[in-house]
Amino acid sequence: MPSVEIIAVGSELLTPERVDTNSLWLTAQLNELGFEVTAKSIIGDQRERLTQAYRQALASADVVISTGGLGPTEDDVTRDCAAEALGVPLEHWESLWDDLKAKFARMGRPIPENNRRQASVLQGGESLPNPHGTAPGQWFGREGGALVLLPGPPRELKPMFSNHVMERLRPLAGASVLVRRTLKIYGLGESAMDEMLAPLYPRHPEVTVTTLFTALDLEVHLLASGATSELGLRKVTPLELAVREVLGLYVYGETAQSLAEVVGQQLLAAGKTLVTAESITGGLVAQRVTEVPGSSAYFLGGFVTYSEDMKHHVLGVPEGMLAQFSAVSAPVAEAMAAGARARSGADYALSLTGYAGPDGGTEEDPVGTAYLGLAGPAGVESRRVKFVGDRELVRSRCAQAALDWLRRALLA
Amino acid sequence: MPSVEIIAVGSELLTPERVDTNSLWLTAQLNELGFEVTAKSIIGDQRERLTQAYRQALASADVVISTGGLGPTEDDVTRDCAAEALGVPLEHWESLWDDLKAKFARMGRPIPENNRRQASVLQGGESLPNPHGTAPGQWFGREGGALVLLPGPPRELKPMFSNHVMERLRPLAGASVLVRRTLKIYGLGESAMDEMLAPLYPRHPEVTVTTLFTALDLEVHLLASGATSELGLRKVTPLELAVREVLGLYVYGETAQSLAEVVGQQLLAAGKTLVTAESITGGLVAQRVTEVPGSSAYFLGGFVTYSEDMKHHVLGVPEGMLAQFSAVSAPVAEAMAAGARARSGADYALSLTGYAGPDGGTEEDPVGTAYLGLAGPAGVESRRVKFVGDRELVRSRCAQAALDWLRRALLA
Repeated sequence: MPSVEIIAVGSELLTPERVDTNSLWLTAQLNELGFEVTAKSIIGDQRERLTQAYRQALASADVVISTGGLGPTEDDVTRDCAAEALGVPLEHWESLWDDLKAKFARMGRPIPENNRRQASVLQGGESLPNPHGTAPGQWFGREGGALVLLPGPPRELKPMFSNHVMERLRPLAGASVLVRRTLKIYGLGESAMDEMLAPLYPRHPEVTVTTLFTALDLEVHLLASGATSELGLRKVTPLELAVREVLGLYVYGETAQSLAEVVGQQLLAAGKTLVTAESITGGLVAQRVTEVPGSSAYFLGGFVTYSEDMKHHVLGVPEGMLAQFSAVSAPVAEAMAAGARARSGADYALSLTGYAGPDGGTEEDPVGTAYLGLAGPAGVESRRVKFVGDRELVRSRCAQAALDWLRRALLA
Repeated sequence: MPSVEIIAVGSELLTPERVDTNSLWLTAQLNELGFEVTAKSIIGDQRERLTQAYRQALASADVVISTGGLGPTEDDVTRDCAAEALGVPLEHWESLWDDLKAKFARMGRPIPENNRRQASVLQGGESLPNPHGTAPGQWFGREGGALVLLPGPPRELKPMFSNHVMERLRPLAGASVLVRRTLKIYGLGESAMDEMLAPLYPRHPEVTVTTLFTALDLEVHLLASGATSELGLRKVTPLELAVREVLGLYVYGETAQSLAEVVGQQLLAAGKTLVTAESITGGLVAQRVTEVPGSSAYFLGGFVTYSEDMKHHVLGVPEGMLAQFSAVSAPVAEAMAAGARARSGADYALSLTGYAGPDGGTEEDPVGTAYLGLAGPAGVESRRVKFVGDRELVRSRCAQAALDWLRRALLA
């Protein structure tokens, strides 16, 4: 399997906080194409060090992919260092400069002279268009390999890789490809899932299984190599079916599907509509639902009733109920859901009220506790959930729990 | 400031899922000690490539820290490659071998012959004890620097670094620590900002400036070293003040502050409350506002009126207005804001209506166009904004634009 090294450029990636997510995404794409990533680095903006890094990577790997450092400023040293490492000059492309000028004109802004740098291309290389930003990418083919320069922002890098680099890499890929199937799971702990699945693995020795535990759910990745993706799939599919059988309803989707997307498909197929009534999550459920293109076909809207006053006036939660049970209680969750459903005319209403922290909570219902409500054609119900984590995590987990409840209700 | 390169060893770190969290933790420790991390890499288990990586790092940086690859198996190539790169032999330490045998005896397990590898130390180096695992670490001092070999598991690496490496690094740290100030900027393009700031830099040669362009805003990082953080700040502060003066209202916050947090502080200080009325952003503005702990003190709630029906029934947008101007229009944005303000009793209401895509839009108002409304004590206004990007980015940018409008309104 041919090898790839990935080099990310930029001092800002060398802080204690930043993770080079581009290289993770690229690795997944490259594995699927049939390349192995053998090394990756992050190099600051020092010219000499970066030039050395390119030289070493070019000497060790078939393909070298560089990300970032293609901007218009002094720090953007990628082009210069790549040229030096390859021993070829940079050429000014007037056509690229014209494109850049046109881009700025469309935005109604004068083009800074700085941006002229972005019209320099490695001699013998190709320029890769960037409809999402100003920095064009570059492809420089070599005997059995290539050096590829991609912009750093993921929203620019990803489409450029998918639309212009993949087709160029395919002829360089080896005889075998790596096939990956990803299942998304909600409601199980990592070790509980591991115990359920471990007995299956020995019967499928050709499939590599990785489980990924995220803040919200679990992923099971099944990988196998084959001469074609069809032959790889023949190894993976029997294990996938076995995993689906063992995990049952815990499996909610596959690959990049979100829970909101799955619920959206269910609502669409059933011709039903949804409304939300949020307190603890402050709009997060509505936001996840509407992240999905076309969600206006089934999502009517939502209420974020943060104050007690709004719970009462907007959703009709009785003041006496708020006083007797507090805003974080099962009766209030049910009244919020029922109120939102009645006021919007939606088929289903999801509600959430709880304590996200860091402050608040009571002895019986400490921070991390929430009541979820679900109102539908069959009536209204509530559930108590309790999550650990900081404010963001608690909110996120509550939103996910509510969506999963609706998913299972729609399956019933 | 002395430089450090970090090299993580192990093919298992080169998958699409794994993040090298050790290097993030080490970077935080090293920055505080007064070292700058200038490069980091992950290298698979290939001997030749790893030896080269050590050679290059040793030639470029004062200190090289290697993590992982110290286990007892064939793949654990760190010791051999480090020895080769340094040009020194490995020595068998009988005392380490005795320690390892004692460790296994305590666990009641026979010691595999393989583990003998873990008793090899670089000639002239020191062994670092590992109470949490079998792999000892190593310290190899060089003129003004060192090569440090640490085990990969974080629960072994962290105490070893804190208890045995920090004290050895301190004398090499020279006299200085790294001070970082981060300013957050909204409403400027990267190259426009660069042109505004570039004239300032030559007057502050001791400060390193990095700009970071994210999907939502810009960050300017100002870094300087000093014998103490106070002395470092003395270098950074004059440039920070100059940057603030040149950028004026474009600077909305610092370090990890979000725009929603800044707006929250303004509302809190003014004793004012906010409500939102969202269509295009589907709850995203409310979610960002409520991400901030304590936001219930100024955020009453929000309306996500996705359907026209909800815009009319919940917010009171006249049906005739929706028919005449369409839901994506300045009059509707204003009516949404005014309606939300009236229904909630909040001091300020922000509204957003637009086309997020991928489908929808009109000739005059294509995908990416939105109308924002702001209702306050002084009346109601609207604005038209137009962003490029996919659905997620358009929504995210609309939310940010609305929050920034409110921020500026609250400053006036």
